Amino acid sequence: MPFHPIALKGQPLAQGRLPAVCAPLVAATHDALLAQARQVVAARPDLLEWRVDFFQQIGATPAVLAAAGALRQVAQGIPILFTRRSSREGGQAIPLDEAQVVALYQAVCAAEVADLVDFEMANAEADVARVREAARRHGVALVLSFHDFQRTPPAAELVARFAQAAALGADVAKVAVMPAAMADVHALLGATLQASAQLEIPVVSMAMGPLGAVSRLCGGAFGSALTFAVGAAASAPGQMPIADVRAGLAVLARAAGAAGT
Amino acid sequence: MPFHPIALKGQPLAQGRLPAVCAPLVAATHDALLAQARQVVAARPDLLEWRVDFFQQIGATPAVLAAAGALRQVAQGIPILFTRRSSREGGQAIPLDEAQVVALYQAVCAAEVADLVDFEMANAEADVARVREAARRHGVALVLSFHDFQRTPPAAELVARFAQAAALGADVAKVAVMPAAMADVHALLGATLQASAQLEIPVVSMAMGPLGAVSRLCGGAFGSALTFAVGAAASAPGQMPIADVRAGLAVLARAAGAAGT
Repeated sequence: MPFHPIALKGQPLAQGRLPAVCAPLVAATHDALLAQARQVVAARPDLLEWRVDFFQQIGATPAVLAAAGALRQVAQGIPILFTRRSSREGGQAIPLDEAQVVALYQAVCAAEVADLVDFEMANAEADVARVREAARRHGVALVLSFHDFQRTPPAAELVARFAQAAALGADVAKVAVMPAAMADVHALLGATLQASAQLEIPVVSMAMGPLGAVSRLCGGAFGSALTFAVGAAASAPGQMPIADVRAGLAVLARAAGAAGT
Repeated sequence: MPFHPIALKGQPLAQGRLPAVCAPLVAATHDALLAQARQVVAARPDLLEWRVDFFQQIGATPAVLAAAGALRQVAQGIPILFTRRSSREGGQAIPLDEAQVVALYQAVCAAEVADLVDFEMANAEADVARVREAARRHGVALVLSFHDFQRTPPAAELVARFAQAAALGADVAKVAVMPAAMADVHALLGATLQASAQLEIPVVSMAMGPLGAVSRLCGGAFGSALTFAVGAAASAPGQMPIADVRAGLAVLARAAGAAGT
């Protein structure tokens, strides 16, 4: 396979298996976050995503850093992806302006309480540059992402989104779309395959909702390095339980490994 | 879903679930066939395919009819697909000429010991017509198939193969290809989706070998009405055990059914 797994400080996530499994954390408070993390960690995802836009104290940077630090303690070595998902791309409304969001990412990178951060590539280019610089300086991997919860753009546009992330200096390019028909899921998988072959960085993709479920299980075969699965609560439509995803991936791995049978 | 399940005498196979699961039988003798069938039936596939080209007595029509009749007894109500796979399309060499093969199909249809028969669409058009007529007269469903064990033709050609089967009067159109890269698997799934939308008959497809494994699990989401899985022994490269396929399909069904989660 020519596909790139996500690597953290040179170590491939999930021993290089595609896709690695990421479980989102969507709690509103410090204590709820840790309780949810303990539950999720028990299901052994390869990565935890803290969706900080769900966190009521997002406006208090020390509270965010304290929660992120505490999360590290309960994560049992599972790497952490820090994400403020913009409300424009499916996230929760938050009381911060973009400058404050960038400052928050800078503080999180400086405190080295996350292994990766996810920032939308649609944000202002200067803000992307600031987040990228903070991530680089502190050895944090940068995911640049694109989400469309309304529709699936044409395949060529999806390929361009992956390429845009790479051009902006991403360590990982992520594209998530909402399909209206299976042809959209097919387009997403094709764009993922094409971007995987063209780019030097790992790509991550998913078609959301019930129609897209197949992409969460089979996307790795088309080059997606990460799939999101539910440990405690979903963060986007169509996510399956971790145990289900692991079972499905195991079936595919056995079949793909059983050459000639 | 606009997809067509395979129907037998008006009853959808596998309660209309896509894909239904078919297990091949590849035994050389009457007794071995029944022993293999008992083992396979215990795994509860939705369909049994008897690959008669593996049967040493294929030249003795009464022996074939006796075996097919006995197979019915041990099948416990699971429908039977009767297939002589041509050596040109991946089957075993047999001591019959094409006229004798057609006569064998006619005898099997007349005896009504199979629910479906599979005949390659590449056979002489007059032979396809004879097999179709025998099948129709006796209420047996006709699968017209195309296999390429060397490569994957372009998507447009695959769509044309499905359409050719429909034009020749098939009740089911089947296309199986060998991928050299995941782009071939993607093309096969796209052609399946397109043919599903265009044709009034169910379509069946698979990409073979390790690269194609994902198509055996996820093909149903793109319109394939049938997947082949191993009950006792594989008949083509890349087939997974029935239990694995069932587990993977259950994961997908739960995810696809869980709207909005």
